[in-house]
Amino acid sequence: MQEPLNVGLLGGGTVGNGVAKILLEHPERMILRAGRPIVLQKVVVRDPSKPRSHIPASLIETNPYRVIEDPNIPVIVELVGGTTDAKNYVLAALAAGKHVVTANKALLAEHGVEIFEAARKANRAIGFEASVCGGIPIINLLSQCLSANQITAIQGILNGTCNFILTTMSEEGRPYAEMLARAQELGYAEANPTLDVDGSDAAHKLAVLAQIAFGVSVPFHEIERVGIDTLHPMDLRFAYELGYTIKLLAEGWLDGNEVALHVAPVLLRKTDMLAQVRGVYNAIQVIGDAVGEMMFQGAGAGALPTASAVISDIVDLAVGRAQKTFAVNKFWSATPKKYQLRPSNKVRSRFYLRVLVRDEPGMLADVARTLANDRISIASIIQHEALEEHQGQVVPLVIMTHYAETGQFRHALSKINELPGVVPPGVSYSVDD
Amino acid sequence: MQEPLNVGLLGGGTVGNGVAKILLEHPERMILRAGRPIVLQKVVVRDPSKPRSHIPASLIETNPYRVIEDPNIPVIVELVGGTTDAKNYVLAALAAGKHVVTANKALLAEHGVEIFEAARKANRAIGFEASVCGGIPIINLLSQCLSANQITAIQGILNGTCNFILTTMSEEGRPYAEMLARAQELGYAEANPTLDVDGSDAAHKLAVLAQIAFGVSVPFHEIERVGIDTLHPMDLRFAYELGYTIKLLAEGWLDGNEVALHVAPVLLRKTDMLAQVRGVYNAIQVIGDAVGEMMFQGAGAGALPTASAVISDIVDLAVGRAQKTFAVNKFWSATPKKYQLRPSNKVRSRFYLRVLVRDEPGMLADVARTLANDRISIASIIQHEALEEHQGQVVPLVIMTHYAETGQFRHALSKINELPGVVPPGVSYSVDD
Repeated sequence: MQEPLNVGLLGGGTVGNGVAKILLEHPERMILRAGRPIVLQKVVVRDPSKPRSHIPASLIETNPYRVIEDPNIPVIVELVGGTTDAKNYVLAALAAGKHVVTANKALLAEHGVEIFEAARKANRAIGFEASVCGGIPIINLLSQCLSANQITAIQGILNGTCNFILTTMSEEGRPYAEMLARAQELGYAEANPTLDVDGSDAAHKLAVLAQIAFGVSVPFHEIERVGIDTLHPMDLRFAYELGYTIKLLAEGWLDGNEVALHVAPVLLRKTDMLAQVRGVYNAIQVIGDAVGEMMFQGAGAGALPTASAVISDIVDLAVGRAQKTFAVNKFWSATPKKYQLRPSNKVRSRFYLRVLVRDEPGMLADVARTLANDRISIASIIQHEALEEHQGQVVPLVIMTHYAETGQFRHALSKINELPGVVPPGVSYSVDD
Repeated sequence: MQEPLNVGLLGGGTVGNGVAKILLEHPERMILRAGRPIVLQKVVVRDPSKPRSHIPASLIETNPYRVIEDPNIPVIVELVGGTTDAKNYVLAALAAGKHVVTANKALLAEHGVEIFEAARKANRAIGFEASVCGGIPIINLLSQCLSANQITAIQGILNGTCNFILTTMSEEGRPYAEMLARAQELGYAEANPTLDVDGSDAAHKLAVLAQIAFGVSVPFHEIERVGIDTLHPMDLRFAYELGYTIKLLAEGWLDGNEVALHVAPVLLRKTDMLAQVRGVYNAIQVIGDAVGEMMFQGAGAGALPTASAVISDIVDLAVGRAQKTFAVNKFWSATPKKYQLRPSNKVRSRFYLRVLVRDEPGMLADVARTLANDRISIASIIQHEALEEHQGQVVPLVIMTHYAETGQFRHALSKINELPGVVPPGVSYSVDD
């Protein structure tokens, strides 16, 4: 048997506790999978007085650099989060000749090129399986398991908090604020849920996936994102009537030499595999040019699922395959890109449009004419009786369009919002078929 | 860049054509993923006169040993199928110092120990991603991605032919023979479909998965299997009424120091992830003690999906990580097993029971008493009006039991079959909750 692999952990929070628990409770399993012992040497925490159920006091350390620079620790696991300290620690670890494992999607999405160039310069590897979708091993899947393929499309439910809120809104017909409160009670949403519900979290993950699948380093702020915080139960209901479910999707796909990326609530046919994914689960659908359509579903967050991904990276380093893989995959390299980002206005899609209009003759004709002026044709329409709360005054008019360019559709929508008799703003979502 | 990796293919059938197509059409992709060219040197076929769309005549060879023993070819891909020639070729390739990639589940299920011991002796690696579920990379998932976990359960729809037949039987209410004929017309089922529909194909795959997930080498014939060829549409209908779908599942799970394995039609709740899997897709649900429940879905067969798996193994060899992995994972080793196979009679399950009984008083009481005699308690009952074809004579009596040992249930069923007024045999399936 080879000598043990010593590991230093930066961060003793939820995931750090999970990693410590598995490493300390299952040493024989690690030997079986890694061919050698994996030994947790130190865990760096901010507050050493805080009780931690799975981390013995003897392993606690408060100075990250004492661990990063310890010559007996060849692997540093970064679980501190954020992009400031985390970046400093990772760069310091690489400079000190350490391999790095990180669960930090924001760090990669925002500083991927700098960090990966530093790793290549130091001839050390970076494992980042845990950075996207917790327990779903999507990084290995895309970069190794599907290596025969050009990935042509990725569609993911990458944020469990949003999927929980959407599932309960949809199944119980309750408003967003109420279901957010329930998610918070259940511990599925943080006290400040902004990064989850506004789509930023999913966009960070999409930026990482776009790098692995398409080789594009997209500046994070260039990924257009719409959250679920403005979603009205009425639209979930109309979508359902039309045969669709609304999911917050992170989507990326190739078209010619361009890649389109966005995060938004999207209408999916109820029979679509992703439409079936309920609650806090994450799921990713991938299309490869050889393998066709695949779907992977599992826990996207949580201490042990995320720790499962972190440890798989440590095991890969212990076996020696992570180093071989890292030497070949040129992720976040500064080489010219094969694909350009398609401007969001140029993305073609079908659209769901819901406008509240005064219940009087000619409104449908006006809206339809405005769409036609931008050469957008209508696939189907629902016009319902007046809503209770607006009885006798306004009615929702729901239109599904055929394919159109987003820019044209947005132009038409701005004109519809100006129509007399329309109560702006009209609400719209993409439709996936 | 490293020197090219030369590959010899044994077998120019469907999958061989797919492998050749990808390797020959995408040489630059292979360099990107493998860090070096992957060069198809020879393809061994039985009939060189047969036209093959993706294999140039210059690569065709008829003598397998000329390829196996070619010192310029370090990787042999075995795609001949069967267990006789294939075994000889694989052992010869290992003896000649070649790495082997194989898609042959039957070979591994029946001769895994011998072949893997030969590989370890020769210090060469065996890649077998394509042997189970075509395009779904379940071998890598279980052995690498989920290395932090003890897998505690696997449930899979491992045979696309059966899933297609069951899906159409269930959705259209048509009998087995008719849907098998349709599957044959569509090319989803072979002219002789026995190995698919009697559960043998799924059992071979389960034997391979049991080795990877649980480390058990189960003689293939010891895996109990029931196919779909005796399934009556009436039972799909009753299951549906009770809130269930019937799927042909290959299941394996740990309980204490035993592992239970079987292939059988099983009742799944309609909301279960696997219950949603329609048509020829394969899907595998896995439970890991860290990661929780996961599901992987994709194409389980076909030229390109299976070629995708074969090529991922070749790329892993070209990168050098397959060799590292093989040195650590002791699959099909002769070491003592941690888990024993649980005898099928000892497996606990809920059961669906349907018996045809004469439409006369006391029948339900007799059946219920017979179950009670074996201490099997009843969860729910459906008794319908007489079937049209038996009008006035016999009616189906459907019973869902609570958990019971299979042996006890079978004993009760044999007694029920002997009851006056029962038209034997009663039909039963396991129920997963």
